Amino acid sequence: MKHLDHIGIAVRNLDEAIARYESILGTACYKRELVESEFVETAFFQQGQTKVELLGATAPESVITKFIEKRGEGLHHMAYEVDDIRTEILRLREAGYQLLNETPKRGADGKWIAFLHPKEAHGVLLELCQS
Amino acid sequence: MKHLDHIGIAVRNLDEAIARYESILGTACYKRELVESEFVETAFFQQGQTKVELLGATAPESVITKFIEKRGEGLHHMAYEVDDIRTEILRLREAGYQLLNETPKRGADGKWIAFLHPKEAHGVLLELCQS
Repeated sequence: MKHLDHIGIAVRNLDEAIARYESILGTACYKRELVESEFVETAFFQQGQTKVELLGATAPESVITKFIEKRGEGLHHMAYEVDDIRTEILRLREAGYQLLNETPKRGADGKWIAFLHPKEAHGVLLELCQS
Repeated sequence: MKHLDHIGIAVRNLDEAIARYESILGTACYKRELVESEFVETAFFQQGQTKVELLGATAPESVITKFIEKRGEGLHHMAYEVDDIRTEILRLREAGYQLLNETPKRGADGKWIAFLHPKEAHGVLLELCQS
């Protein structure tokens, strides 16, 4: 894995969260993007190499709705940029790890993504992403 | 704030978590460090600009013990590198935000640190750190 690409944060109200993070981080949100297949709207901030991705649900069946119901708002996942996501998926499967996606799917930011099961990484939902 | 310096992850067993993260990330832990004042042992991984900091409790009164009892293992905090932590604390206080530390304290990695209250950042425990 190359580097930490972004940290995903689950929020109830995306507009409020964007204003709050702009104030705290001292930098403007540079992009909002709907991921319709996941019922999620995203908002990105960048300072240095690793971005912050705020995640707001757009429907009750969104994974973000379920996450917030169970755990409240907060840190949701961390995502590593990889050179070749299919090779990384294969490497992790051969090491015995369970992935939530056996093949890459389309995520925000024009990336191919796949998730490792949180039980494999001490409770952390770890995303692989390839630009 | 300059860039995301590290992501803190609360784990039950630091030795097991180090082996697991070495296997998943494909990189070796480059440093372990006790923070005796916090009853925490830390272990660092670096790929690119943002590090991963595994956090294991060394005593029942550790904040990590309490965090895991309440929420389980997983993502604990995110930390931004700043040029001047006292200036940042003042800026956030003047903007009306509540900090957990009014003055910087010593953290791992030889840094001065202070935390923003999680209620201010949509459930995220946000650390400021200055090398």
